Amino acid sequence: MRPSERQPNEMRRVSLERRCSRHAEGSCFVKFGDTHVLCTASLEDRVPPWLRGGGRGWVTAEYGMLPRSTTERMRREAAAGKQSGRTQEIQRLIGRSLRAVIDLEALGERQISVDCDVIQADGGTRTAAITGAWVALHDCVQWMAARDMVQPTAITDHIAAVSCGIYKDTPVLDLDYLEDSDAETDANFVMTGAGGLVEVQATAEGKPFSEDEFAALLALARHGIGELVSMQKLTIA
Amino acid sequence: MRPSERQPNEMRRVSLERRCSRHAEGSCFVKFGDTHVLCTASLEDRVPPWLRGGGRGWVTAEYGMLPRSTTERMRREAAAGKQSGRTQEIQRLIGRSLRAVIDLEALGERQISVDCDVIQADGGTRTAAITGAWVALHDCVQWMAARDMVQPTAITDHIAAVSCGIYKDTPVLDLDYLEDSDAETDANFVMTGAGGLVEVQATAEGKPFSEDEFAALLALARHGIGELVSMQKLTIA
Amino acid sequence: MRPSERQPNEMRRVSLERRCSRHAEGSCFVKFGDTHVLCTASLEDRVPPWLRGGGRGWVTAEYGMLPRSTTERMRREAAAGKQSGRTQEIQRLIGRSLRAVIDLEALGERQISVDCDVIQADGGTRTAAITGAWVALHDCVQWMAARDMVQPTAITDHIAAVSCGIYKDTPVLDLDYLEDSDAETDANFVMTGAGGLVEVQATAEGKPFSEDEFAALLALARHGIGELVSMQKLTIA
Amino acid sequence: MRPSERQPNEMRRVSLERRCSRHAEGSCFVKFGDTHVLCTASLEDRVPPWLRGGGRGWVTAEYGMLPRSTTERMRREAAAGKQSGRTQEIQRLIGRSLRAVIDLEALGERQISVDCDVIQADGGTRTAAITGAWVALHDCVQWMAARDMVQPTAITDHIAAVSCGIYKDTPVLDLDYLEDSDAETDANFVMTGAGGLVEVQATAEGKPFSEDEFAALLALARHGIGELVSMQKLTIA
Amino acid sequence: MRPSERQPNEMRRVSLERRCSRHAEGSCFVKFGDTHVLCTASLEDRVPPWLRGGGRGWVTAEYGMLPRSTTERMRREAAAGKQSGRTQEIQRLIGRSLRAVIDLEALGERQISVDCDVIQADGGTRTAAITGAWVALHDCVQWMAARDMVQPTAITDHIAAVSCGIYKDTPVLDLDYLEDSDAETDANFVMTGAGGLVEVQATAEGKPFSEDEFAALLALARHGIGELVSMQKLTIA
Amino acid sequence: MRPSERQPNEMRRVSLERRCSRHAEGSCFVKFGDTHVLCTASLEDRVPPWLRGGGRGWVTAEYGMLPRSTTERMRREAAAGKQSGRTQEIQRLIGRSLRAVIDLEALGERQISVDCDVIQADGGTRTAAITGAWVALHDCVQWMAARDMVQPTAITDHIAAVSCGIYKDTPVLDLDYLEDSDAETDANFVMTGAGGLVEVQATAEGKPFSEDEFAALLALARHGIGELVSMQKLTIA
Repeated sequence: MRPSERQPNEMRRVSLERRCSRHAEGSCFVKFGDTHVLCTASLEDRVPPWLRGGGRGWVTAEYGMLPRSTTERMRREAAAGKQSGRTQEIQRLIGRSLRAVIDLEALGERQISVDCDVIQADGGTRTAAITGAWVALHDCVQWMAARDMVQPTAITDHIAAVSCGIYKDTPVLDLDYLEDSDAETDANFVMTGAGGLVEVQATAEGKPFSEDEFAALLALARHGIGELVSMQKLTIA
Repeated sequence: MRPSERQPNEMRRVSLERRCSRHAEGSCFVKFGDTHVLCTASLEDRVPPWLRGGGRGWVTAEYGMLPRSTTERMRREAAAGKQSGRTQEIQRLIGRSLRAVIDLEALGERQISVDCDVIQADGGTRTAAITGAWVALHDCVQWMAARDMVQPTAITDHIAAVSCGIYKDTPVLDLDYLEDSDAETDANFVMTGAGGLVEVQATAEGKPFSEDEFAALLALARHGIGELVSMQKLTIA
Repeated sequence: MRPSERQPNEMRRVSLERRCSRHAEGSCFVKFGDTHVLCTASLEDRVPPWLRGGGRGWVTAEYGMLPRSTTERMRREAAAGKQSGRTQEIQRLIGRSLRAVIDLEALGERQISVDCDVIQADGGTRTAAITGAWVALHDCVQWMAARDMVQPTAITDHIAAVSCGIYKDTPVLDLDYLEDSDAETDANFVMTGAGGLVEVQATAEGKPFSEDEFAALLALARHGIGELVSMQKLTIA
Repeated sequence: MRPSERQPNEMRRVSLERRCSRHAEGSCFVKFGDTHVLCTASLEDRVPPWLRGGGRGWVTAEYGMLPRSTTERMRREAAAGKQSGRTQEIQRLIGRSLRAVIDLEALGERQISVDCDVIQADGGTRTAAITGAWVALHDCVQWMAARDMVQPTAITDHIAAVSCGIYKDTPVLDLDYLEDSDAETDANFVMTGAGGLVEVQATAEGKPFSEDEFAALLALARHGIGELVSMQKLTIA
Repeated sequence: MRPSERQPNEMRRVSLERRCSRHAEGSCFVKFGDTHVLCTASLEDRVPPWLRGGGRGWVTAEYGMLPRSTTERMRREAAAGKQSGRTQEIQRLIGRSLRAVIDLEALGERQISVDCDVIQADGGTRTAAITGAWVALHDCVQWMAARDMVQPTAITDHIAAVSCGIYKDTPVLDLDYLEDSDAETDANFVMTGAGGLVEVQATAEGKPFSEDEFAALLALARHGIGELVSMQKLTIA
Repeated sequence: MRPSERQPNEMRRVSLERRCSRHAEGSCFVKFGDTHVLCTASLEDRVPPWLRGGGRGWVTAEYGMLPRSTTERMRREAAAGKQSGRTQEIQRLIGRSLRAVIDLEALGERQISVDCDVIQADGGTRTAAITGAWVALHDCVQWMAARDMVQPTAITDHIAAVSCGIYKDTPVLDLDYLEDSDAETDANFVMTGAGGLVEVQATAEGKPFSEDEFAALLALARHGIGELVSMQKLTIA
C-alpha cells in the first residue's frame, strides 16, 4: 500500500494553470499533488555566444527551489553563491527535453529561457517542471506566432515527464516524497506526445534492478505520460 | 491623475493569504495589486555564531525575485553567483523591521528565518514583503506557543510598511511600477501597530525634496499603514 | 552628557584636506573626529553598459574599510571574496547622493568613480565619505573643466551628510562610535547646499521613534550640514 | 561503417593499469582507446557532516579534465572558479555507481574519495572512469584490509560502465568522440558483475528513440560490460 | 641618469611614522618617496587550524592597494571577488619575511595579522611594506610584553627590504615606478639586521642577467637595507 | 647523506617524453624522479585584451596538481572555487620564464597557453614544469612553422630550471620532497641555454643564508641546468 493510498499506476491529482504570470510570454503553474512549480517562458533577443550569426535559436532552462519549498528549510542558492550539482543536473535535463520538440531553425536567432521555480516540493519536481514547461514554451511560441515571428509549427510535439520507482518491491507511478525517500529504484522518463522516448534515467538506490523491473517502470511511465499529454491538450485547447 | 486611476491616498487592492505553505511554520502570500510575494517563516534550532551561548534568539530575512517576476527577465542570482546590492539592502531592511516587534530574549536560542520571494513584481515589493512577513512571523510564533516553546507575547506589536512618492508634483500612496519609475521622490516607511516609526527611507530621484513634501509623504504613509495593520488583524483573527 | 562631552548640537572637529592624492583627478582626506576617510575621484573614459551610446555620463562610488580601521580587525573583503551587504548599501548611498548634484548630460559619455576608503573608523563613516567625496568630485570636474572637457557648472550644488540619533533620550548630532552603539534611533541625512533633502534614512534600533523626535533629528541635521557646506566652500575657495 | 572500422558490438582496446600512483591507497590508469583516465582512491579519516557519529562510511567521487585533454583547449575549471554542470553531473554518477557495490557500514566512519582525472579524451570518459574507479576502490579496500581496518568483503561486487548509441541508424557499442558527436541517441549503462542494472541514462540527441532501439542498446551494453568485468578480474588477480 | 636624478646607490627619502593608528596594537605609516603604505599589526586570539593545540603562534600578512593608489584606477579586489595572483604573491612574501625574525613558540597560541595597505604607489610597494611591517610587528610585541603576554625578545632581529634593478645598463637602488617599468632586471632583497639573506627574487624583464650583474644588485641592496635598519632603530628608540 | 643517497650535485633521473598528447600542438611528459608533470602547449587564435590590435602575441601558463598527486590528498581547486596563492605564484613564474625565450612580435596576434599539470609530486614540480614546458612550447612553434605561421627562430633560446637548497648544512641540487620539507634554504633558478639568469628565488626557511651559501647554490644550479638543456637538445633532435 502506498502512503498516499494510490493504486500503483495512479498519478497524483495534476493541474496545469496557463497564463499565470502577468509578464512572461508563456507561463504555467503546474501541480502534481503537493508539488507546485511555476514555469515561465521568456523570449530574449539574443542567443548564446556559440550560436551567434548562425540564424538558429536556442531554448534553455533554469531551475530553482524556494528555500522553504521543502520540509526543512534549504540554504538559498543565491546566498550560497552557487547552484548545487542537483540543480544544474535538473536544469540541463529540462532544457534538453524541451529542445527535443522545438525546431530551433524556425525560431530564428532568439532564445527562449524557461524558468522552473519550485514553490512547494513533495517529490517529482523535475517531472512536473518538464510537463509545465512545455505549456509555457507552447504559449511563448504562440505569442510569437501572433506577432509573425515564427510559425506555430515550430513546436513539433508535446513533451511530458513522470517518475516511477520500485517501492516495497512494487513498481509504482509518480512517486511523492515519502515514497521517493524509501524507493529501491527511482526513474524518470521523458516522452513525446507521439510516444517516443527522449530521456530515460534510472538509478538503483539500494539493490540493482533487473531488466524486467525496468520494463515495468517503463510501462507505467508510458501510461502516466499519456495522461499528462492529454491534460496538456485540454489546457491549450 | 495616477496611471491606475487611484486617488492620491488610495492603496492598491491588498490581500493576505495565511498558511499558504504546507511546510513552513508560518506563511503568508501577500498581494499589493499585481505585486505578489510569498513569505515563509522557518524555525531553526540554531543562532548566528555571535549569539551562541547567550540564550537570545534571532530573526533574519532573505529576499529574492523569480527571474521573470519582472517585465524583462532578470538574471537569476543563484546563477550569477551572488546577490545584488539591492537584494541585500532589502533583506537587511526586512530583518531589522521584524526584529523591532519581537522579544529576542523570549525566543530562546533559536532563529526564525523569514523568506520573502517575489513571485510577481509591480512596485513596492519590499513594503509588501514586510507586511506579509509579519503575518508569517506571527504564525510561526503561534506555532511555537502551541508547543510551549515561547509565550505568544514574544510578538510585541504589528509591523507594516508602505511606499509613498511624489509623482507629477503630487504626493501619492503605494506606488506601482509605472509611478515608481517616474517619481521625483520615493520613500518607504515602516511603522508599528501603535504608530511608532521604525524605518524611514526617502530618496530624491530627481530634484531634492522639501520638509513639507516629506511631511505629506509621512501623513500618507500613516494612513496606509493603518489600513494594512487592520488587514493583518483580520487575517490572524 | 555625551561621552565626548560635546553639546547635543555640536559636531566633532571636521577637516577636509584637498588634493591629498598624487594620482587622482580629485581627492579629499576628510576627518570627522577620529573617523578618517580618503576620497578619490577617478575619471574614466567609459560608462556602464546600459548608458553606452547615449551621450550621458555617470558617477559611481565604491566604499571600503581597511581591515584594522576598526576596534577589532575585520576580515578583508577582498580575501572573503565579496563585499558585505553593509558595504554595498553604503556605496549605493554615496553614489546616489553625488548624482543628485551633477548634470550627467554635461559630463558626456564618461564615468567618474569615487572611492571612499576608511582609514580609521569612529562612527559616521558614510556621512564623512559623502562630505569628502563631494570635494573630490568637485576637483575632478574642475580638472576636466581646465581641459575643456566639461563646464564647471556640471556640478549644480554642494552635497553633504551627517548622522543624528537619539542617545539617552536626547537628540544629538554627529554620533561617534560609542554613541552609535548605544543610540535608540540612528539617522543619516543628506542635503544640498540649498537645503533640499536628498536622502533620509532613520532606523529605530530599540523602541520606535515619534514624528516629533524625527523632527528634532532633522533640525540638528540641517544645522550640521550647514556647517559642513561652509567648510566645503572654504576648502575649494 | 563506424569511423574506427569497429563492428557495432566491438569495444575499443581497453587496458587497466593498476597501482600507477605512488601515493594513493588504490589507483588505476584506464584506457578505452584514446580516452585515458587516471583514477585514484584516497582514504580519509573523516566523513561528510551529515554522517558524523553514525559509524558509517562514505565513498565519493570527483571528476576533472585536463585543459588540453580535448581537441580544443577547455578553460581550466579551477581558473574559472567553478565546476561546470557537466562535471558535477558526472562526478555524482561515478559516486552513486561506486556506492552501489560497497558496504558503507563495513567501512567504519571513514571516507574514500575517488578522483577521476581525464588525461586525454576521445568519448566515453565517464564510463572509462567508472570502470577504472572500481579497480582503484578495490585496491584501496584491499590496502585497508591488509591493515585490519575492514574486511575485503566490504566490496560486494564489480561495477563497470559503457556507452552505447544509435549511429547512422545502427545501435553501436562504446562510442568514440566522432560517433558521439553524431549519434542520434546516446546512452550510458552501469551494471554490476552479477548483471544487475545500477544506472541507465539514455538521451535522444535528435529524434526520439523507440523501446526496441533502447532494448538493442541495453543488449550491447550487457555484452560490453561483461568484457569489462572480465578485464577487471584479470587486473586484480 | 635616473629620472629622479638620484645616484645609483641612493634611496628615495624614507620615513617611518609609528603609532599612526588609533586601534591597532602596532602600526607604522611608511613612505619610500611617493610610495606610501599603512602597516597595522593586529593581535588575534586564535591560530590557523593546522596549528591549533600546539602552543605555537603565527604571523601572517595581507596586502592591498587602494583603487586609486595607482596612476590608472585599478579594479577594487573586493568588488572583483578575488585577490589577484600578484597580491597573493606579495602577501605571502611579507608573511614569510616577518616570520624569519620572530620566535613563534614564544608567541603562544596567538596570531598577529599584519595588514599592509598601499595608500599611494610609486614602485617598491612590497619592500616598503616589509620595512614598515617590521615596525608594526615590533610595536605589537612590545604592547604584548607590556601586558606580560610575551617576552620582548620574541622579536629576534630586524627585517627590511629593498628593490634593485638594472636600468639603462646600470645597477640602481630602490626603483620608482618610472624606472621599474623600464628596468631590464628587477630584484627584491629581504635581509635581517645582522645582514643575513632571507629572500632573494630577481627577474629578467628583458634580456637575461649575468652573475656579475646579480652581485652588483646584491651589493646595492646590502647598502640600502643597512640604511633602512638604521631608520627602524631610530624609529623605535 | 641525502635521503635518496644522491651526491650533493647529482640530479634525479630526468626524462622528457615529447608528443605525449594526441591533441596538443606541443606536449612533453617530464619526470624529475618521482615528480611527473604533463606539459601541453595550445595555440589559440586570440590574445589577452590589453594586447588586442597590436600585432604581438603572448605566451601564458597554467599550473595544477591532481588532488592525489601528493602524499595526502589535496582539495581540488576547481571544487574549492579558486586557485591557491601558491598555484598562482607558480603559473606566473612559468609564464615569465617561457616569455624570456620567445619573440612575441614574431608570433603574431596569437596566444600559446602552456598547461603544466602535476600527475605525481615529489618536490620540484615548478622546475620540472618549466623544463618540460619549454619542449612543449618548442614543438608548438615547430608545428606553427610547418604551417608557415611563424619562423622557427621565434624561439630564441632554451630555458630550464632546477631547485637547490641547503640540507643539513650542505648545498644540494634538485631537492626531492623529503629534502625540501627539511631544508634550511630553498632556491629555484631559471636559466637560458646560453647561461643567462632569468629568475632567481631563494628563501630562508629557518635561519638566514649568507652570500657564500647563495653562491654555492647558484653554482649547483648552473651545473644542473646545463644537464637539463643537454637533455632538451637530445629530445628535440
